[in-house]
Amino acid sequence: MTKRLGVLLSGRGSNFEALADSVDAGRIPDAEISVVVSNREGAPGIERARARNIAARVIPSKGLEREAFDRQVVALLQEHRVELVCLAGYMRLLSPYFVAAFPNRILNIHPSLLPAFPGLESQKQALEYGAKFAGCTVHFVDENLDAGPIILQAAVPVRDDDTEASLSQRILREEHRIYSEAVTLVLAGKFKITGRRVTRTET
Amino acid sequence: MTKRLGVLLSGRGSNFEALADSVDAGRIPDAEISVVVSNREGAPGIERARARNIAARVIPSKGLEREAFDRQVVALLQEHRVELVCLAGYMRLLSPYFVAAFPNRILNIHPSLLPAFPGLESQKQALEYGAKFAGCTVHFVDENLDAGPIILQAAVPVRDDDTEASLSQRILREEHRIYSEAVTLVLAGKFKITGRRVTRTET
Repeated sequence: MTKRLGVLLSGRGSNFEALADSVDAGRIPDAEISVVVSNREGAPGIERARARNIAARVIPSKGLEREAFDRQVVALLQEHRVELVCLAGYMRLLSPYFVAAFPNRILNIHPSLLPAFPGLESQKQALEYGAKFAGCTVHFVDENLDAGPIILQAAVPVRDDDTEASLSQRILREEHRIYSEAVTLVLAGKFKITGRRVTRTET
Repeated sequence: MTKRLGVLLSGRGSNFEALADSVDAGRIPDAEISVVVSNREGAPGIERARARNIAARVIPSKGLEREAFDRQVVALLQEHRVELVCLAGYMRLLSPYFVAAFPNRILNIHPSLLPAFPGLESQKQALEYGAKFAGCTVHFVDENLDAGPIILQAAVPVRDDDTEASLSQRILREEHRIYSEAVTLVLAGKFKITGRRVTRTET
């Protein structure tokens, strides 16, 4: 049975394209991206989805209360029979209503080794802090910012001559790699969650 | 000219022994450990220093105000003409008086990838958080806990079957490696500090 993914984005959606490439290449087996949703008009990710013949919808969030907006998004995802929701540069916190609709079925990727450098401009934060390792994190999503149990992380060195751009690019390559790996792991159900700790299981 | 190091510890001082081994092996060139100080009676590190014929002194901190105690320690370090102070499991914050006496000349090692998991039991914190990478950090010391510009870090994977003991041991091997590297770098003066960022220089 093909597993149906939904992707939420607010902008470029480079991680959406990486997931779509992985689906096309069979690195995420037995899956398809069924729908892409943006909360912002003009998000380039929407055009890129359409160019791939993936259903894509803008649901403007502006002026709506969080849950009222989320109910529209959840309805659309359910209409498309989505089993796993992947956030890809989605600039909104989810309501408890949304989280409850997809228990342990919403993933996000964040460009830092959480719990270090949550929030915006993580790569810049890491450089300014003087960290010697940066990285990225795929985690289950709950109502809190960049929280939820961690599925995979990747670490990359920070170089003395790094700029925000060069560090971001090095991290982005790892983001694309581990996001596909994490989606595959979660779709296969080969994990368990103990407290905050996610570990692999054989079955 | 041989550079003179002082080591402060409160317990076992495994990082003291790693530094002493590196000095003996020439991995930290042109240096000697001139004195080891413990704030606690019975710290095993003191006996180990004496077994290596290194001057070792206990200055009990109990009941003393922070600066009154630090003045005794600084006086002892100055008496031994110490140029660089290395904390090795030293369970005290330093007073501004101490920090000012050795500007950018006090190092500490912490068993996490700071700014993640400061304080006690970092390895346990990392496991309970579900981090997939842990590590260690050598940093300059200021008056705050586990703060100060970072000189070197090392990242190690957290495995699904890790316990606090197995993770701590994997990190400890990296601690011993990077602490010696960082001491060598600082003694050679081949670094600059820009904001919080420590980078290498040629001279």
